[in-house]
Amino acid sequence: MATGGDTEYAICTEQELIQSFAKAGDRVLYWGSGSPQAWRVLIALEEKKIEYRSVCISFSSGVLKTPTFQQINPRMRVPVFVDGAAGVILYECAAILAYLEQFYPNPLFPNDPKLYAIAQTRLHESNEILSMVGEMVVYLRRAQANANKNIRPNPEILQAKWNFLESELKLWEMYLDGRNFLVANEPFLCDIVTFTNIAYAVRCGLQLDGLYPRLAMWYLRMCSLPSIEKTWPPHWKTTNGFSVLAKCHFCMCAGKCVCSCQGE
Amino acid sequence: MATGGDTEYAICTEQELIQSFAKAGDRVLYWGSGSPQAWRVLIALEEKKIEYRSVCISFSSGVLKTPTFQQINPRMRVPVFVDGAAGVILYECAAILAYLEQFYPNPLFPNDPKLYAIAQTRLHESNEILSMVGEMVVYLRRAQANANKNIRPNPEILQAKWNFLESELKLWEMYLDGRNFLVANEPFLCDIVTFTNIAYAVRCGLQLDGLYPRLAMWYLRMCSLPSIEKTWPPHWKTTNGFSVLAKCHFCMCAGKCVCSCQGE
Repeated sequence: MATGGDTEYAICTEQELIQSFAKAGDRVLYWGSGSPQAWRVLIALEEKKIEYRSVCISFSSGVLKTPTFQQINPRMRVPVFVDGAAGVILYECAAILAYLEQFYPNPLFPNDPKLYAIAQTRLHESNEILSMVGEMVVYLRRAQANANKNIRPNPEILQAKWNFLESELKLWEMYLDGRNFLVANEPFLCDIVTFTNIAYAVRCGLQLDGLYPRLAMWYLRMCSLPSIEKTWPPHWKTTNGFSVLAKCHFCMCAGKCVCSCQGE
Repeated sequence: MATGGDTEYAICTEQELIQSFAKAGDRVLYWGSGSPQAWRVLIALEEKKIEYRSVCISFSSGVLKTPTFQQINPRMRVPVFVDGAAGVILYECAAILAYLEQFYPNPLFPNDPKLYAIAQTRLHESNEILSMVGEMVVYLRRAQANANKNIRPNPEILQAKWNFLESELKLWEMYLDGRNFLVANEPFLCDIVTFTNIAYAVRCGLQLDGLYPRLAMWYLRMCSLPSIEKTWPPHWKTTNGFSVLAKCHFCMCAGKCVCSCQGE
């Protein structure tokens, strides 16, 4: 079900995909609206001031499953980066980011070994946030889909998952103690990657204000970067997210409260 | 339950852990026997000819959960690398590997941008193997643990998981077409990381011979590297793995066949 909004800026057919292919010397990023993995590459390209052509793929159109897209990435997902000048096709967001860092100017890592070590550690451990959030979202949306069968999410499982996520977020609160960004007072690649994970959680209803004050302020600082504003997922601008991570889901209200998260 | 074998080479108490701490200028790797994530760092240190002190932590002793270990890594897991000379503590295996590559000689990536792009892509997509294998092992061992309650694994779920893993392995067969290692005719970091994932699957009963001929030959080539022989997980040398990935588990024999995987 390709939505109207989607088709305005995203590629929906194999034909359009073929027309989008990189010419010699061309740099093309294939991405999808709302994918944290694709978004971080868009932000990095902007921060590093690399010229590129942006090709948004519609997730709902099925283009990712076509033989034409599989020629670019057998894993049938975005992001994919084509560096026509070097004759290179890369997939896996972490691989694309490492490649850009290696061969393009405007580094997104600090030089100092001590700071570099922190930046690398934060970069990789931020995967934890996305996997925990993703797991909860899948669990809760499955429960929502079965709500008419009167199957409620298991409160114990939900509480355990929520406890894990809260411990995780507290760790990041600690990491932000005494600094404006994760490593120092300027953002690096680890901030960009962590930001896309937190932004996805916020889109899913996670509340930062009042609960995680340093993360909340860091999130606002990141939002104000021109690279992030420019690349904001288009469909996030015009639609509401699934508010499955709103606190109400965990208040055990069993559907009796009146907050917005019950409405979907 | 600390096993006898474990205590011979592994740290089991907080006291021993404190004694193991890095002195000024010392390089220490904390690892655990059988962890693919820790093993790949050991292999990389050997391949890069970096002097280091190896500290094996007993998983079963509970040392990873002590406040002393949490001071080193709040995530309570190995590997952790302490570079005393630089005053650096790193956790997350991918972060440690990136740090070693950045600041130490004997590179484990190719120079050429095209080959570098392939090496980075393979490095990161090899996570897929470990996560699929890990998921199946958890599912099957849970079923084994409940076998006395006459709960058998769901054949449809099992078949679906197995199909995913087979498609994954076929992709790596394709990647090895026409070359001895994943990128070229010599091993790089992506071979090391992928090797530890495949070795874990083999330990869990996965059969390569006859099914995945290129992977099987590549696996033997990797096994013959001195760095890998030297760092082979100690408890793997003296014990059998859980053969949950042996094909028999998928033959739908419902316990009627006589292969070894029924014995545990």
